Amino acid sequence: MGHTESVDIVRWTGDEKNSITDNVIIEYPLTIFVNGEELVTLLCTPIDLKELAIGFLFSEGFIKGIDDLGEFELDEKNGIAKVRTKSPVDFTRELFSKRTIASGCEKSAIFYNARDSLGQRKVTSDTSISSRVLIELNNSMQKSSVLYRTTGCAHSAALCDTEKILSFKEDIGRHNALDKVLGDALLKDMPTNGKIILTSGRASSEIVVKSVRHGIAILVSRSAPTNLAVKIATQSGLTLIGFARGNRMNIYSNGNRIIAKGSEIRR
Amino acid sequence: MGHTESVDIVRWTGDEKNSITDNVIIEYPLTIFVNGEELVTLLCTPIDLKELAIGFLFSEGFIKGIDDLGEFELDEKNGIAKVRTKSPVDFTRELFSKRTIASGCEKSAIFYNARDSLGQRKVTSDTSISSRVLIELNNSMQKSSVLYRTTGCAHSAALCDTEKILSFKEDIGRHNALDKVLGDALLKDMPTNGKIILTSGRASSEIVVKSVRHGIAILVSRSAPTNLAVKIATQSGLTLIGFARGNRMNIYSNGNRIIAKGSEIRR
Repeated sequence: MGHTESVDIVRWTGDEKNSITDNVIIEYPLTIFVNGEELVTLLCTPIDLKELAIGFLFSEGFIKGIDDLGEFELDEKNGIAKVRTKSPVDFTRELFSKRTIASGCEKSAIFYNARDSLGQRKVTSDTSISSRVLIELNNSMQKSSVLYRTTGCAHSAALCDTEKILSFKEDIGRHNALDKVLGDALLKDMPTNGKIILTSGRASSEIVVKSVRHGIAILVSRSAPTNLAVKIATQSGLTLIGFARGNRMNIYSNGNRIIAKGSEIRR
Repeated sequence: MGHTESVDIVRWTGDEKNSITDNVIIEYPLTIFVNGEELVTLLCTPIDLKELAIGFLFSEGFIKGIDDLGEFELDEKNGIAKVRTKSPVDFTRELFSKRTIASGCEKSAIFYNARDSLGQRKVTSDTSISSRVLIELNNSMQKSSVLYRTTGCAHSAALCDTEKILSFKEDIGRHNALDKVLGDALLKDMPTNGKIILTSGRASSEIVVKSVRHGIAILVSRSAPTNLAVKIATQSGLTLIGFARGNRMNIYSNGNRIIAKGSEIRR
Protein backbone atom coordinates (compact mmCIF):
# COMPACT_ATOMS: atom_id res chain seq x y z
CA MET A 1 0.00 0.00 0.00
CA GLY A 2 1.33 3.46 -0.94
CA HIS A 3 2.04 6.17 1.60
CA THR A 4 1.01 9.05 -0.62
CA GLU A 5 -1.58 9.66 -3.30
CA SER A 6 -1.23 11.89 -6.34
CA VAL A 7 -3.99 14.49 -6.80
CA ASP A 8 -4.66 17.15 -9.44
CA ILE A 9 -4.83 20.58 -7.84
CA VAL A 10 -4.94 24.25 -8.75
CA ARG A 11 -2.19 26.46 -7.34
CA TRP A 12 -2.95 30.16 -6.97
CA THR A 13 -0.05 32.59 -6.71
CA GLY A 14 -1.63 35.99 -6.09
CA ASP A 15 -4.35 36.14 -8.77
CA GLU A 16 -2.76 33.70 -11.20
CA LYS A 17 -3.68 30.06 -11.27
CA ASN A 18 -2.02 26.91 -12.60
CA SER A 19 -3.03 23.28 -12.70
CA ILE A 20 -0.43 21.02 -11.11
CA THR A 21 -0.14 17.59 -9.51
CA ASP A 22 0.53 17.24 -5.77
CA ASN A 23 1.26 14.33 -3.44
CA VAL A 24 -0.93 14.06 -0.35
CA ILE A 25 -0.33 11.74 2.58
CA ILE A 26 -2.62 8.72 3.05
CA GLU A 27 -4.83 8.88 6.18
CA TYR A 28 -5.64 5.25 6.94
CA PRO A 29 -7.92 3.91 9.70
CA LEU A 30 -6.52 0.90 11.59
CA THR A 31 -9.00 -0.70 13.98
CA ILE A 32 -7.46 -2.81 16.74
CA PHE A 33 -9.43 -5.76 18.13
CA VAL A 34 -8.11 -7.39 21.30
CA ASN A 35 -9.45 -10.87 22.09
CA GLY A 36 -12.37 -10.25 19.73
CA GLU A 37 -13.32 -6.89 21.29
CA GLU A 38 -12.96 -3.63 19.34
CA LEU A 39 -10.56 -1.39 21.26
CA VAL A 40 -9.70 1.67 19.18
CA THR A 41 -9.24 2.99 15.66
CA LEU A 42 -6.05 4.89 14.94
CA LEU A 43 -5.80 7.24 11.97
CA CYS A 44 -2.34 6.53 10.68
CA THR A 45 0.06 6.10 7.80
CA PRO A 46 -0.11 2.52 6.47
CA ILE A 47 3.53 1.55 7.09
CA ASP A 48 4.66 -0.66 9.98
CA LEU A 49 1.11 -1.46 11.06
CA LYS A 50 2.11 -4.43 13.22
CA GLU A 51 4.62 -2.23 15.07
CA LEU A 52 1.90 0.40 15.51
CA ALA A 53 -0.73 -1.99 16.88
CA ILE A 54 1.68 -3.74 19.26
CA GLY A 55 3.36 -0.46 20.23
CA PHE A 56 -0.01 1.14 21.04
CA LEU A 57 -1.05 -1.80 23.25
CA PHE A 58 2.36 -1.74 24.93
CA SER A 59 2.63 2.00 25.46
CA GLU A 60 -0.95 2.27 26.73
CA GLY A 61 -0.38 -0.53 29.22
CA PHE A 62 -2.70 -3.18 27.69
CA ILE A 63 0.26 -5.57 27.36
CA LYS A 64 3.27 -5.49 29.66
CA GLY A 65 5.72 -7.17 27.35
CA ILE A 66 6.21 -9.56 24.45
CA ASP A 67 5.29 -12.51 26.69
CA ASP A 68 1.71 -11.19 26.98
CA LEU A 69 1.29 -11.36 23.22
CA GLY A 70 -0.47 -14.31 21.58
CA GLU A 71 -1.64 -14.42 17.94
CA PHE A 72 -1.48 -11.37 15.71
CA GLU A 73 -3.40 -11.06 12.44
CA LEU A 74 -3.37 -8.06 10.11
CA ASP A 75 -6.06 -7.52 7.45
CA GLU A 76 -4.43 -4.62 5.64
CA LYS A 77 -7.16 -4.30 2.99
CA ASN A 78 -9.86 -3.67 5.59
CA GLY A 79 -7.69 -1.86 8.14
CA ILE A 80 -8.11 -4.43 10.91
CA ALA A 81 -5.52 -5.75 13.37
CA LYS A 82 -6.60 -8.72 15.53
CA VAL A 83 -4.55 -9.34 18.63
CA ARG A 84 -4.86 -12.18 21.16
CA THR A 85 -3.27 -11.76 24.57
CA LYS A 86 -2.12 -14.64 26.76
CA SER A 87 -3.90 -13.22 29.83
CA PRO A 88 -7.39 -11.65 29.67
CA VAL A 89 -7.67 -7.86 29.22
CA ASP A 90 -10.33 -6.07 31.25
CA PHE A 91 -12.51 -3.87 29.04
CA THR A 92 -14.19 -1.75 31.66
CA ARG A 93 -15.37 1.73 30.82
CA GLU A 94 -12.32 2.98 32.68
CA LEU A 95 -10.10 1.29 30.15
CA PHE A 96 -12.15 2.70 27.31
CA SER A 97 -11.78 6.17 28.68
CA LYS A 98 -8.05 5.63 29.01
CA ARG A 99 -7.57 5.40 25.30
CA THR A 100 -8.19 9.09 24.98
CA ILE A 101 -4.78 9.56 26.60
CA ALA A 102 -3.07 8.57 23.38
CA SER A 103 -5.01 10.92 21.18
CA GLY A 104 -4.85 14.34 22.75
CA CYS A 105 -7.54 14.10 25.42
CA GLU A 106 -7.00 13.08 28.98
CA LYS A 107 -8.76 12.41 32.26
CA SER A 108 -9.43 15.29 34.61
CA ALA A 109 -6.52 16.35 36.79
CA ILE A 110 -4.27 14.71 34.27
CA PHE A 111 -1.11 15.53 36.14
CA TYR A 112 -2.09 13.45 39.13
CA ASN A 113 -3.65 10.74 36.96
CA ALA A 114 -0.60 10.61 34.75
CA ARG A 115 1.54 10.37 37.88
CA ASP A 116 -0.80 7.69 39.20
CA SER A 117 -0.59 5.74 35.97
CA LEU A 118 3.17 5.93 36.23
CA GLY A 119 2.96 4.84 39.85
CA GLN A 120 6.15 5.72 41.66
CA ARG A 121 8.07 5.05 38.46
CA LYS A 122 11.26 7.07 38.26
CA VAL A 123 13.83 7.10 35.49
CA THR A 124 17.06 6.36 37.35
CA SER A 125 19.29 5.51 34.39
CA ASP A 126 22.81 6.94 34.48
CA THR A 127 22.87 7.29 30.68
CA SER A 128 24.70 10.40 29.62
CA ILE A 129 25.65 11.81 26.23
CA SER A 130 27.62 14.76 24.96
CA SER A 131 25.63 17.65 23.56
CA ARG A 132 27.41 17.36 20.20
CA VAL A 133 26.68 13.66 19.74
CA LEU A 134 23.02 14.19 20.65
CA ILE A 135 22.76 17.11 18.22
CA GLU A 136 24.30 14.93 15.48
CA LEU A 137 21.90 12.05 16.19
CA ASN A 138 18.97 14.45 16.06
CA ASN A 139 20.07 16.06 12.80
CA SER A 140 20.61 12.65 11.27
CA MET A 141 17.08 11.62 12.31
CA GLN A 142 15.58 14.75 10.80
CA LYS A 143 17.35 14.13 7.49
CA SER A 144 15.88 10.61 7.34
CA SER A 145 12.28 11.80 7.17
CA VAL A 146 11.38 11.02 3.55
CA LEU A 147 7.63 11.20 4.14
CA TYR A 148 7.84 14.69 5.60
CA ARG A 149 9.86 15.92 2.65
CA THR A 150 7.36 14.39 0.18
CA THR A 151 4.14 15.54 1.83
CA GLY A 152 4.93 18.25 4.41
CA CYS A 153 2.63 16.32 6.70
CA ALA A 154 4.40 13.60 8.69
CA HIS A 155 6.03 13.05 12.04
CA SER A 156 9.02 10.90 12.80
CA ALA A 157 10.38 9.22 15.91
CA ALA A 158 13.57 7.32 16.64
CA LEU A 159 14.94 5.15 19.42
CA CYS A 160 18.68 5.63 19.98
CA ASP A 161 21.45 4.58 22.29
CA THR A 162 24.30 7.03 22.92
CA GLU A 163 25.93 6.20 19.59
CA LYS A 164 23.35 5.37 16.92
CA ILE A 165 19.71 5.21 15.82
CA LEU A 166 18.26 1.78 16.63
CA SER A 167 14.77 2.28 15.15
CA PHE A 168 13.24 5.02 12.98
CA LYS A 169 9.56 5.31 12.07
CA GLU A 170 7.25 7.83 10.39
CA ASP A 171 3.53 8.47 10.66
CA ILE A 172 0.93 11.17 10.14
CA GLY A 173 0.54 11.29 13.95
CA ARG A 174 3.29 12.02 16.47
CA HIS A 175 1.82 9.51 18.96
CA ASN A 176 1.71 6.84 16.25
CA ALA A 177 5.33 7.40 15.21
CA LEU A 178 6.41 6.93 18.84
CA ASP A 179 4.19 3.85 19.28
CA LYS A 180 5.69 2.34 16.10
CA VAL A 181 9.21 2.76 17.49
CA LEU A 182 8.19 1.27 20.85
CA GLY A 183 6.41 -1.62 19.05
CA ASP A 184 9.47 -2.25 16.90
CA ALA A 185 11.68 -2.36 20.01
CA LEU A 186 9.29 -4.80 21.69
CA LEU A 187 9.06 -7.10 18.64
CA LYS A 188 12.85 -7.11 18.25
CA ASP A 189 13.36 -7.57 22.00
CA MET A 190 15.43 -4.37 22.25
CA PRO A 191 15.33 -2.95 25.78
CA THR A 192 14.19 0.69 25.97
CA ASN A 193 15.49 1.30 29.50
CA GLY A 194 18.01 4.13 29.62
CA LYS A 195 17.62 4.82 25.87
CA ILE A 196 16.94 8.07 24.00
CA ILE A 197 13.80 9.01 22.02
CA LEU A 198 13.97 11.64 19.28
CA THR A 199 10.67 13.05 17.98
CA SER A 200 9.72 15.68 15.43
CA GLY A 201 6.49 16.41 17.30
CA ARG A 202 5.52 18.58 20.23
CA ALA A 203 6.44 17.21 23.65
CA SER A 204 3.05 17.13 25.36
CA SER A 205 2.24 15.24 28.56
CA GLU A 206 1.20 12.01 26.80
CA ILE A 207 4.53 11.75 24.98
CA VAL A 208 6.39 12.21 28.27
CA VAL A 209 4.19 9.62 30.01
CA LYS A 210 4.74 7.05 27.22
CA SER A 211 8.51 7.65 27.45
CA VAL A 212 8.72 7.39 31.25
CA ARG A 213 6.61 4.21 31.19
CA HIS A 214 9.31 2.59 29.05
CA GLY A 215 12.27 3.79 31.07
CA ILE A 216 13.48 6.26 28.41
CA ALA A 217 16.23 8.48 29.90
CA ILE A 218 16.27 11.35 27.39
CA LEU A 219 13.38 12.66 25.26
CA VAL A 220 14.36 15.09 22.50
CA SER A 221 11.73 17.06 20.59
CA ARG A 222 12.26 19.27 17.55
CA SER A 223 9.25 21.24 18.76
CA ALA A 224 8.00 22.85 21.98
CA PRO A 225 7.19 21.19 25.31
CA THR A 226 4.11 22.05 27.40
CA ASN A 227 4.20 23.08 31.06
CA LEU A 228 2.61 19.76 32.05
CA ALA A 229 5.24 17.82 30.09
CA VAL A 230 7.98 19.76 31.92
CA LYS A 231 6.37 19.05 35.33
CA ILE A 232 5.96 15.31 34.72
CA ALA A 233 9.46 15.00 33.24
CA THR A 234 11.02 16.90 36.17
CA GLN A 235 9.33 14.71 38.79
CA SER A 236 9.91 11.45 36.89
CA GLY A 237 13.63 11.93 36.35
CA LEU A 238 13.30 12.18 32.53
CA THR A 239 15.64 14.54 30.67
CA LEU A 240 13.30 16.62 28.48
CA ILE A 241 14.78 18.54 25.56
CA GLY A 242 12.84 20.85 23.22
CA PHE A 243 13.51 22.96 20.13
CA ALA A 244 16.37 20.69 19.05
CA ARG A 245 17.25 22.26 15.71
CA GLY A 246 20.57 22.82 13.97
CA ASN A 247 23.22 22.95 16.70
CA ARG A 248 20.85 24.15 19.42
CA MET A 249 18.61 22.58 22.01
CA ASN A 250 16.82 23.62 25.20
CA ILE A 251 16.96 21.41 28.31
CA TYR A 252 13.77 21.61 30.39
CA SER A 253 14.48 19.00 33.07
CA ASN A 254 17.18 16.75 34.53
CA GLY A 255 19.94 18.25 32.41
CA ASN A 256 22.70 16.32 34.20
CA ARG A 257 22.60 13.62 31.49
CA ILE A 258 23.84 16.10 28.87
CA ILE A 259 27.55 16.73 29.13
CA ALA A 260 30.04 18.90 27.26
CA LYS A 261 32.28 17.42 24.57
CA GLY A 262 35.26 15.56 25.92
CA SER A 263 33.55 14.43 29.11
CA GLU A 264 33.45 10.75 29.80
CA ILE A 265 30.55 8.98 28.08
CA ARG A 266 28.82 6.36 30.18
CA ARG A 267 26.06 3.98 29.17
CA MET B 1 -5.39 32.03 34.38
CA GLY B 2 -2.20 32.54 32.37
CA HIS B 3 -1.61 30.98 28.98
CA THR B 4 2.10 30.47 29.41
CA GLU B 5 4.44 29.63 32.26
CA SER B 6 8.00 30.84 32.71
CA VAL B 7 10.61 28.11 33.27
CA ASP B 8 14.36 28.16 33.88
CA ILE B 9 16.15 26.15 31.23
CA VAL B 10 19.61 25.40 29.92
CA ARG B 11 20.26 26.18 26.27
CA TRP B 12 23.05 24.25 24.57
CA THR B 13 24.57 25.67 21.39
CA GLY B 14 27.05 23.07 20.20
CA ASP B 15 29.03 22.28 23.37
CA GLU B 16 28.40 25.57 25.15
CA LYS B 17 25.62 25.97 27.65
CA ASN B 18 23.77 28.96 29.08
CA SER B 19 21.03 29.31 31.67
CA ILE B 20 18.04 31.24 30.33
CA THR B 21 14.33 31.66 30.98
CA ASP B 22 11.75 30.33 28.51
CA ASN B 23 7.96 30.55 28.20
CA VAL B 24 6.11 27.26 27.78
CA ILE B 25 2.45 26.91 26.88
CA ILE B 26 -0.01 25.74 29.55
CA GLU B 27 -1.55 22.31 28.91
CA TYR B 28 -4.82 22.35 30.84
CA PRO B 29 -7.32 19.48 31.23
CA LEU B 30 -10.97 20.53 30.85
CA THR B 31 -13.45 17.77 31.72
CA ILE B 32 -16.92 18.20 30.25
CA PHE B 33 -19.91 16.78 32.12
CA VAL B 34 -23.24 16.65 30.27
CA ASN B 35 -26.34 16.21 32.43
CA GLY B 36 -24.16 14.93 35.29
CA GLU B 37 -22.34 12.36 33.16
CA GLU B 38 -18.61 12.68 32.39
CA LEU B 39 -18.23 12.91 28.62
CA VAL B 40 -14.64 13.76 27.75
CA THR B 41 -11.52 15.59 28.90
CA LEU B 42 -9.87 17.93 26.44
CA LEU B 43 -6.25 18.97 26.86
CA CYS B 44 -6.36 22.61 25.93
CA THR B 45 -5.18 26.17 26.46
CA PRO B 46 -7.22 27.82 29.25
CA ILE B 47 -8.70 30.68 27.21
CA ASP B 48 -12.31 30.74 25.96
CA LEU B 49 -13.25 27.59 27.84
CA LYS B 50 -17.00 28.15 27.51
CA GLU B 51 -16.59 28.52 23.73
CA LEU B 52 -14.51 25.32 23.70
CA ALA B 53 -16.99 23.22 25.69
CA ILE B 54 -20.03 24.42 23.74
CA GLY B 55 -18.16 24.27 20.43
CA PHE B 56 -17.06 20.68 21.11
CA LEU B 57 -20.62 19.57 21.94
CA PHE B 58 -21.90 21.40 18.86
CA SER B 59 -19.28 20.21 16.41
CA GLU B 60 -19.50 16.60 17.64
CA GLY B 61 -23.27 16.60 17.26
CA PHE B 62 -24.23 16.36 20.98
CA ILE B 63 -26.21 19.60 20.66
CA LYS B 64 -27.81 20.76 17.43
CA GLY B 65 -27.99 24.45 18.25
CA ILE B 66 -28.18 27.07 20.98
CA ASP B 67 -31.79 26.05 21.73
CA ASP B 68 -30.57 22.65 22.98
CA LEU B 69 -28.41 24.34 25.61
CA GLY B 70 -29.60 24.67 29.21
CA GLU B 71 -27.40 25.69 32.15
CA PHE B 72 -23.66 26.07 31.79
CA GLU B 73 -21.27 26.15 34.76
CA LEU B 74 -17.51 26.51 34.57
CA ASP B 75 -15.21 25.58 37.49
CA GLU B 76 -11.99 26.96 36.10
CA LYS B 77 -9.89 26.08 39.15
CA ASN B 78 -10.69 22.37 38.87
CA GLY B 79 -10.99 22.22 35.07
CA ILE B 80 -14.65 21.22 35.00
CA ALA B 81 -17.43 22.39 32.66
CA LYS B 82 -20.96 21.28 33.57
CA VAL B 83 -23.52 21.48 30.79
CA ARG B 84 -27.25 20.76 30.95
CA THR B 85 -29.11 20.11 27.72
CA LYS B 86 -32.83 20.73 27.24
CA SER B 87 -33.36 17.28 25.69
CA PRO B 88 -31.70 14.12 27.07
CA VAL B 89 -28.38 12.98 25.52
CA ASP B 90 -27.93 9.25 24.99
CA PHE B 91 -24.64 8.04 26.43
CA THR B 92 -24.38 4.69 24.75
CA ARG B 93 -21.04 3.12 24.14
CA GLU B 94 -21.43 4.21 20.54
CA LEU B 95 -21.44 7.81 21.65
CA PHE B 96 -18.41 7.18 23.82
CA SER B 97 -16.54 5.73 20.90
CA LYS B 98 -17.53 8.69 18.76
CA ARG B 99 -15.54 11.10 20.87
CA THR B 100 -12.35 9.67 19.47
CA ILE B 101 -13.26 11.39 16.21
CA ALA B 102 -12.30 14.74 17.69
CA SER B 103 -8.96 13.63 18.95
CA GLY B 104 -7.22 11.86 16.14
CA CYS B 105 -8.77 8.42 16.25
CA GLU B 106 -11.76 7.29 14.27
CA LYS B 107 -14.10 4.37 13.73
CA SER B 108 -13.16 1.71 11.23
CA ALA B 109 -13.86 2.54 7.58
CA ILE B 110 -13.77 6.16 8.57
CA PHE B 111 -14.50 7.43 5.09
CA TYR B 112 -17.88 5.76 5.00
CA ASN B 113 -18.58 6.49 8.66
CA ALA B 114 -17.63 10.11 8.22
CA ARG B 115 -19.90 10.26 5.20
CA ASP B 116 -22.61 8.51 7.23
CA SER B 117 -22.26 10.97 10.07
CA LEU B 118 -22.63 13.77 7.53
CA GLY B 119 -25.66 12.03 6.06
CA GLN B 120 -26.36 13.34 2.58
CA ARG B 121 -25.16 16.77 3.71
CA LYS B 122 -23.73 18.81 0.86
CA VAL B 123 -22.28 22.30 0.96
CA THR B 124 -24.29 24.11 -1.72
CA SER B 125 -23.39 27.70 -0.81
CA ASP B 126 -22.62 30.02 -3.74
CA THR B 127 -20.07 31.97 -1.65
CA SER B 128 -17.14 33.05 -3.75
CA ILE B 129 -14.06 35.14 -3.00
CA SER B 130 -11.14 36.47 -4.97
CA SER B 131 -7.81 34.74 -4.45
CA ARG B 132 -6.19 38.01 -3.33
CA VAL B 133 -8.80 38.80 -0.66
CA LEU B 134 -8.59 35.24 0.69
CA ILE B 135 -4.78 35.42 0.78
CA GLU B 136 -5.00 38.75 2.66
CA LEU B 137 -7.50 37.35 5.19
CA ASN B 138 -5.25 34.34 5.74
CA ASN B 139 -2.10 36.44 6.22
CA SER B 140 -3.95 38.71 8.60
CA MET B 141 -5.07 35.66 10.64
CA GLN B 142 -1.54 34.31 10.81
CA LYS B 143 -0.20 37.66 12.06
CA SER B 144 -2.76 37.64 14.90
CA SER B 145 -1.39 34.49 16.50
CA VAL B 146 0.23 35.91 19.65
CA LEU B 147 0.37 32.58 21.45
CA TYR B 148 2.26 30.91 18.61
CA ARG B 149 4.82 33.70 18.54
CA THR B 150 5.30 33.47 22.33
CA THR B 151 5.52 29.70 22.68
CA GLY B 152 6.06 28.15 19.21
CA CYS B 153 3.36 25.71 20.22
CA ALA B 154 -0.16 26.88 19.38
CA HIS B 155 -2.76 26.58 16.67
CA SER B 156 -5.20 29.22 15.54
CA ALA B 157 -8.53 29.18 13.74
CA ALA B 158 -10.77 31.91 12.39
CA LEU B 159 -14.28 32.21 11.02
CA CYS B 160 -14.59 34.75 8.18
CA ASP B 161 -17.06 36.06 5.68
CA THR B 162 -15.75 37.24 2.31
CA GLU B 163 -14.55 40.55 3.79
CA LYS B 164 -13.37 40.14 7.37
CA ILE B 165 -12.51 37.88 10.30
CA LEU B 166 -15.59 37.34 12.51
CA SER B 167 -13.98 35.19 15.23
CA PHE B 168 -10.36 34.27 16.00
CA LYS B 169 -9.25 31.73 18.62
CA GLU B 170 -6.03 30.02 19.69
CA ASP B 171 -5.34 26.72 21.41
CA ILE B 172 -2.65 24.11 21.87
CA GLY B 173 -4.79 21.76 19.72
CA ARG B 174 -5.99 22.38 16.18
CA HIS B 175 -9.34 20.68 16.88
CA ASN B 176 -9.83 22.82 19.97
CA ALA B 177 -9.08 26.09 18.14
CA LEU B 178 -11.73 25.18 15.54
CA ASP B 179 -14.24 24.13 18.23
CA LYS B 180 -13.67 27.45 20.05
CA VAL B 181 -14.49 29.38 16.90
CA LEU B 182 -17.61 27.27 16.26
CA GLY B 183 -18.66 27.66 19.91
CA ASP B 184 -18.15 31.42 19.72
CA ALA B 185 -20.30 31.59 16.59
CA LEU B 186 -23.03 29.54 18.29
CA LEU B 187 -23.00 31.66 21.47
CA LYS B 188 -23.13 34.89 19.43
CA ASP B 189 -25.79 33.45 17.13
CA MET B 190 -23.59 34.01 14.04
CA PRO B 191 -24.57 31.66 11.20
CA THR B 192 -21.69 29.54 9.87
CA ASN B 193 -23.44 28.53 6.63
CA GLY B 194 -21.48 29.61 3.56
CA LYS B 195 -18.66 31.05 5.69
CA ILE B 196 -14.90 30.50 5.54
CA ILE B 197 -12.68 28.76 8.11
CA LEU B 198 -8.95 29.53 8.29
CA THR B 199 -6.77 27.16 10.30
CA SER B 200 -3.06 26.94 11.03
CA GLY B 201 -3.30 23.16 11.46
CA ARG B 202 -3.23 20.20 9.14
CA ALA B 203 -6.47 19.55 7.23
CA SER B 204 -7.24 15.98 8.27
CA SER B 205 -10.58 14.22 7.82
CA GLU B 206 -12.00 15.31 11.20
CA ILE B 207 -11.42 19.00 10.44
CA VAL B 208 -13.20 18.61 7.10
CA VAL B 209 -16.11 16.73 8.73
CA LYS B 210 -16.52 19.42 11.43
CA SER B 211 -16.53 22.11 8.72
CA VAL B 212 -19.03 20.37 6.43
CA ARG B 213 -21.32 19.69 9.38
CA HIS B 214 -21.58 23.46 9.93
CA GLY B 215 -22.12 24.38 6.29
CA ILE B 216 -18.68 25.98 5.89
CA ALA B 217 -18.06 26.72 2.18
CA ILE B 218 -14.27 27.18 2.16
CA LEU B 219 -11.68 25.61 4.49
CA VAL B 220 -8.19 27.11 4.29
CA SER B 221 -5.23 25.40 5.99
CA ARG B 222 -1.70 26.75 6.35
CA SER B 223 -0.59 23.13 6.40
CA ALA B 224 -1.13 19.95 4.35
CA PRO B 225 -4.37 18.06 3.70
CA THR B 226 -4.65 14.26 3.81
CA ASN B 227 -6.04 12.09 1.01
CA LEU B 228 -9.13 11.30 3.12
CA ALA B 229 -9.74 15.02 3.75
CA VAL B 230 -9.54 15.65 -0.02
CA LYS B 231 -12.01 12.80 -0.74
CA ILE B 232 -14.58 13.92 1.83
CA ALA B 233 -14.26 17.59 0.79
CA THR B 234 -14.65 16.72 -2.90
CA GLN B 235 -17.80 14.66 -2.31
CA SER B 236 -19.31 17.12 0.20
CA GLY B 237 -18.94 20.22 -1.97
CA LEU B 238 -16.43 21.88 0.40
CA THR B 239 -13.65 24.00 -1.12
CA LEU B 240 -10.47 22.66 0.50
CA ILE B 241 -7.32 24.76 0.39
CA GLY B 242 -3.91 23.76 1.76
CA PHE B 243 -0.43 25.27 2.09
CA ALA B 244 -1.85 28.80 2.23
CA ARG B 245 1.33 30.76 2.90
CA GLY B 246 2.51 34.16 1.67
CA ASN B 247 0.72 34.79 -1.63
CA ARG B 248 0.25 31.11 -2.50
CA MET B 249 -2.36 28.46 -1.89
CA ASN B 250 -3.26 25.03 -3.30
CA ILE B 251 -6.90 24.19 -4.10
CA TYR B 252 -7.69 20.50 -3.55
CA SER B 253 -11.45 20.45 -4.22
CA ASN B 254 -14.35 22.52 -5.54
CA GLY B 255 -12.14 25.38 -6.69
CA ASN B 256 -15.00 27.23 -8.42
CA ARG B 257 -15.52 29.41 -5.31
CA ILE B 258 -12.09 31.00 -5.77
CA ILE B 259 -12.07 33.64 -8.48
CA ALA B 260 -9.46 35.96 -9.98
CA LYS B 261 -9.16 39.59 -8.90
CA GLY B 262 -11.74 41.86 -10.47
CA SER B 263 -14.41 39.19 -10.76
CA GLU B 264 -17.74 39.84 -9.17
CA ILE B 265 -17.87 38.98 -5.45
CA ARG B 266 -21.06 37.30 -4.34
CA ARG B 267 -22.15 36.41 -0.83
